[in-house]
Amino acid sequence: MIGAECLLRSLIANGVDTCFMNPGTSEMQFVAALDRVPQMRGILCLFEGVCSGAADGYARMLRRPASTLLHLGPGLGNGLANFHNARKARSPVVSIVGQHTTQHLRLDAPLSADIEAFARTVSDYVRSLERAADMGRETSAAVAAACAPPGQVATLIVPADFSWSEAGDPAAPLSGPGASCPGVFPAAVAGPNAGCVRAVASLLKSGEPAGLLLGGSTLLAPGLELAGQLASKTGARVFASRYGARLARGGGRFAPLRLPYFPEAVDSALAGLRHLILVETSSPVSFFGYPGRPGSLVPEGCAVHVLAPVEADGVAALRALVEECGAAGLTAAPVLPARRPAGVPELPAGGDLTPEAIGLTLARLLPEGAILSEEMVSSGEAVLRQLGGAAAFDLLPVTGGSIGQGLPVAVGAAVACPGRKVIALEADGSSMYTPQSLWTMARENLDVVVVILANRRYRILDIEMQRTSMQGTSTPKTGAGAMGPRANDMLDIGRPDLDWVKLSEGMGVEAVRATTAGEFIAHFAAAIKPGGPRLIEAVLAK
Amino acid sequence: MIGAECLLRSLIANGVDTCFMNPGTSEMQFVAALDRVPQMRGILCLFEGVCSGAADGYARMLRRPASTLLHLGPGLGNGLANFHNARKARSPVVSIVGQHTTQHLRLDAPLSADIEAFARTVSDYVRSLERAADMGRETSAAVAAACAPPGQVATLIVPADFSWSEAGDPAAPLSGPGASCPGVFPAAVAGPNAGCVRAVASLLKSGEPAGLLLGGSTLLAPGLELAGQLASKTGARVFASRYGARLARGGGRFAPLRLPYFPEAVDSALAGLRHLILVETSSPVSFFGYPGRPGSLVPEGCAVHVLAPVEADGVAALRALVEECGAAGLTAAPVLPARRPAGVPELPAGGDLTPEAIGLTLARLLPEGAILSEEMVSSGEAVLRQLGGAAAFDLLPVTGGSIGQGLPVAVGAAVACPGRKVIALEADGSSMYTPQSLWTMARENLDVVVVILANRRYRILDIEMQRTSMQGTSTPKTGAGAMGPRANDMLDIGRPDLDWVKLSEGMGVEAVRATTAGEFIAHFAAAIKPGGPRLIEAVLAK
Repeated sequence: MIGAECLLRSLIANGVDTCFMNPGTSEMQFVAALDRVPQMRGILCLFEGVCSGAADGYARMLRRPASTLLHLGPGLGNGLANFHNARKARSPVVSIVGQHTTQHLRLDAPLSADIEAFARTVSDYVRSLERAADMGRETSAAVAAACAPPGQVATLIVPADFSWSEAGDPAAPLSGPGASCPGVFPAAVAGPNAGCVRAVASLLKSGEPAGLLLGGSTLLAPGLELAGQLASKTGARVFASRYGARLARGGGRFAPLRLPYFPEAVDSALAGLRHLILVETSSPVSFFGYPGRPGSLVPEGCAVHVLAPVEADGVAALRALVEECGAAGLTAAPVLPARRPAGVPELPAGGDLTPEAIGLTLARLLPEGAILSEEMVSSGEAVLRQLGGAAAFDLLPVTGGSIGQGLPVAVGAAVACPGRKVIALEADGSSMYTPQSLWTMARENLDVVVVILANRRYRILDIEMQRTSMQGTSTPKTGAGAMGPRANDMLDIGRPDLDWVKLSEGMGVEAVRATTAGEFIAHFAAAIKPGGPRLIEAVLAK
Repeated sequence: MIGAECLLRSLIANGVDTCFMNPGTSEMQFVAALDRVPQMRGILCLFEGVCSGAADGYARMLRRPASTLLHLGPGLGNGLANFHNARKARSPVVSIVGQHTTQHLRLDAPLSADIEAFARTVSDYVRSLERAADMGRETSAAVAAACAPPGQVATLIVPADFSWSEAGDPAAPLSGPGASCPGVFPAAVAGPNAGCVRAVASLLKSGEPAGLLLGGSTLLAPGLELAGQLASKTGARVFASRYGARLARGGGRFAPLRLPYFPEAVDSALAGLRHLILVETSSPVSFFGYPGRPGSLVPEGCAVHVLAPVEADGVAALRALVEECGAAGLTAAPVLPARRPAGVPELPAGGDLTPEAIGLTLARLLPEGAILSEEMVSSGEAVLRQLGGAAAFDLLPVTGGSIGQGLPVAVGAAVACPGRKVIALEADGSSMYTPQSLWTMARENLDVVVVILANRRYRILDIEMQRTSMQGTSTPKTGAGAMGPRANDMLDIGRPDLDWVKLSEGMGVEAVRATTAGEFIAHFAAAIKPGGPRLIEAVLAK
């Protein structure tokens, strides 16, 4: 069997049956082999950042890896920003990168570049295939590496001649705990640390102000339920990491407070804590450093404890803690931050199209089990704050902060979960990094509603500008709002306005524009009916 | 003076007055400083690959660097593909990348990444600023490094706190040969090697079949004229490297044969040569390796000689060679490949819209001094072959092979040369990697005509598929045209069709569609009148 077919069949044997691809000459063998390995679904993307972001979204939903197929160093380069986000989401991804033939590598051809150097920026696991005969084994090893807790982007670089050479039989998955992941990842190797559990339990029982900070798999329904029981029993406050890969919300679930974006708001949220207990997450830090304040968000005098590190099974640790605290079977009481009331929220009364109106519309109209890919940036808090009473949904937040993830993650989530409605909530600025996602949505007829929140600004930077540029040792203290006209122009993406209806239609996705709350309600109600992709440009009131 | 202002003023002092930017929080100080340093022109791009490609186009035309301002590792990641092309073009670029504050670097914030690792994939010169006080000196050093022959992407990574800290005075350019480049790059350090010149001259006089392969600065008018004189005097054949940064064509100039893309065509072009003489270029290799043939394109039995390495002044070397051969003052005779006849070419007679018809239209209608940014891929040869009789123009070809350079390079060339008409000749597939370029064209009202050659395929891959996937040791020999339907689908970008008129209008650029040669002639004639950007979607006949 030639190498390309061996690779595809080995991926299938390892439970990897989806490939987001933007192939070039060096990958033609893999493309040709798709007809011989029909179990592999090839999904074409017109830009590599769509491939990498889609693989991230797929992994966040299914907890197993998709593969990507990219072309040489620069093709991988275009995928790095969303691989960075996947890395921070701890998403397992098998990144296959085509390489020149081994003979050609010695020549300085135009596309020659150090692919391993590109890959190492986002991958702790990088292998260049050295012999065609290793194809099967190296493929299984890459899948196993991708799935090793807590999950990562694993890169396998394949010289073109190995893909057309004899490579032997496809490989079976590697054996051993956490070695491969047909269907489940990350298989945490060890159970909860009993000593940690007892120590944290005695903290919680002590009555000192304590908070749990949840991350990773504990942000899904079972973990939230356990955390709610702990809050109910011990009075502990419960928080959700802002940058978890996936967060179960709505449906009357216990809703821990997501840590806010700006550090002062986190200070308020965590004020008074004497103990912060980390569960599958690391100690909270602000997104950026700012003049005159620390980057760590742990309150002064608050001790940090690790119940479960990021590579462990935090849900098992919470379960053990619930047992130890005698909280099993309790219903989470409305401890603040509280379980929100279930029931049908009200639609907004009309009027201006604001983020709040969009949030209220979503709260009322989201179908059960919707998946929200969220990259609204400056509008995010105002929209999401309204969703407490919505039907159960999964939120896929920004993880690595590299802009341009929202649309590709929606592509991947929709491929992973064909029975569920995906809503991509996007800022207009963010959407322009990977707009090519719309084309793949159209081609695959993905059930996605894209909402572009258009404020014609890099609005978040208006705030960041005030925070960072009007301070400092010798900056003229020109005060808030004193940004000059040339600086202002660099944050203004409304000259000219982007027309998202035309952009969307240009890529084959039906689109409409809403400029009032009433229009948005009508368009959204129509768009969420089952079917292919739809885009709504929501022009926000000034 | 704070660091951000010191950096901008130091760039200005070094002759760098243009910055293509996509800034984030860490770069807000630089944006704010634009109002205090009005000599610096900030040009906003909505995607980083537009910044890096525009800086490449700018450098190819002005032979001095622009700067780019990108946001942390992943922002730089999005710029890498076009920095790769800039690297292969040997374009000088000063790449400024914002970094977290030095305090924040120790924390694992979402956007934390190894920026130096990202930068090293395309930059041999990578510096992280270690003290605010070094800002001026390090800026001058980065400019000098960018301009050191033969030119490169030089990266300076600037922690945010240094941009708001006291940094002293701006720096003057470094002194010494090749140390900096206000206005001229690359300043070759040494003159021609007299021994080399004499040796090559005696080869050329020997009468053995010899060819000159021109690259770098020798592809502009003075070098071409000298090469033409040598051809006239000695009978040497003259070739142009396919991947030079900029090639002067048309206007009755001596027109060496550009080496073709496919290696068999190069074999034919170079057949019979006993000596190949390299001038500011390296030994020719094929773009990709293919089964059963070598990657080197040097004919068997042909010796390779270096008249001038890539970092040398090849024009000076050619001039010395002309002297040595007694060819000074000669007019280049119509040696094959020959000077093409000047005069007004005929317009196509109408009929189907083919690449040939597009080429003939350009040949007739190109204004004097036009700049052609070329990324037509499969249609390129057929269009460019028609341009021998056109008015003088500059061709900016693909250099590094990373797709998505054509539109950004056009942006940079138009910024660099406001008095000249820029034509971006783009394939539909290629255009989708950096379509955001159109928005910057609209915002800056750049005088660019974009022609999208739409064949609704990754057509080049149809050919590459036949070349690579139907061969090999054990591939089923299914023969030409036997690509399966699933493979075929991965090369088909026409499901759904991209509507370039809507895409272009969506980003603020007026657009029309041509489906016949007659329509194309009319649209192109209208579009090349002076004014802002225009796009023509040229739907090629099947």
